[in-house]
Amino acid sequence: MPRKKQVHTSAEETEMAFYDAINRADIDAMMALWAEEEEIVCIHPGASRLIGHAAIRASWEAIFARGSVHIRPILLHATHNVMTSMHNIVEEVQRNNTLSEQQDVHILTTNIYVKTAKGWRIALHHASIAPGKAQTEEKAAPVLH
Amino acid sequence: MPRKKQVHTSAEETEMAFYDAINRADIDAMMALWAEEEEIVCIHPGASRLIGHAAIRASWEAIFARGSVHIRPILLHATHNVMTSMHNIVEEVQRNNTLSEQQDVHILTTNIYVKTAKGWRIALHHASIAPGKAQTEEKAAPVLH
Repeated sequence: MPRKKQVHTSAEETEMAFYDAINRADIDAMMALWAEEEEIVCIHPGASRLIGHAAIRASWEAIFARGSVHIRPILLHATHNVMTSMHNIVEEVQRNNTLSEQQDVHILTTNIYVKTAKGWRIALHHASIAPGKAQTEEKAAPVLH
Repeated sequence: MPRKKQVHTSAEETEMAFYDAINRADIDAMMALWAEEEEIVCIHPGASRLIGHAAIRASWEAIFARGSVHIRPILLHATHNVMTSMHNIVEEVQRNNTLSEQQDVHILTTNIYVKTAKGWRIALHHASIAPGKAQTEEKAAPVLH
């Protein structure tokens, strides 16, 4: 199924495909979701800033080489205008790595989507580690189904 | 000087006023820069997500209560469209706290500005700690003058 060639007609669709690509460790599907400009920005938790397709692709290849990562985005907070959609989410991560073993942290992620001629694409992904369990004052509901 | 009532006609102006407010520990000037909607998001380095004016104001009051913070934004990476400006910057922080004493970290910040009827305002501020000194493959130039 040529998922990577799909034109996503909303930021929500692109975000669903983003976490699907991570869960399947599918590098081509992942990179097809980013805006084609070299201005794209990616910050993984606790890592330096990456700019451009080559650096960002290499980083996801390194992550996927260690196996797929199961992320459940919760607590979506979204605002948008005609050309841009700003999502901030809490990520629940399941993986046999140090992050998932640290029960007292959670991941906060800002995803910025822009409307392009080829549908809604990712312009920026900024993920970082926050202390404590995810806050629960907001209603915790999965956004992907 | 009624800086807080100024209408900023570009995201760059708003960003300059943002770091100026931090440097002066001016809570009113700071809060006047945010979009009026309650959808605004603020994530301080290593802290949980804050949403809305009350929570965000309280967080900056707590920061300013410990004195001003001198931040020099460098390595600005900006993209924009008609209604939205996305800035990612490296922050050099000078303060007598643990962060500034840790020479082997730097701060990465995503600032999202939106065009409103009252000028360009901050919609999202997401700052996080990254290991190592700030990357130097990009030209390091101050953006505030």
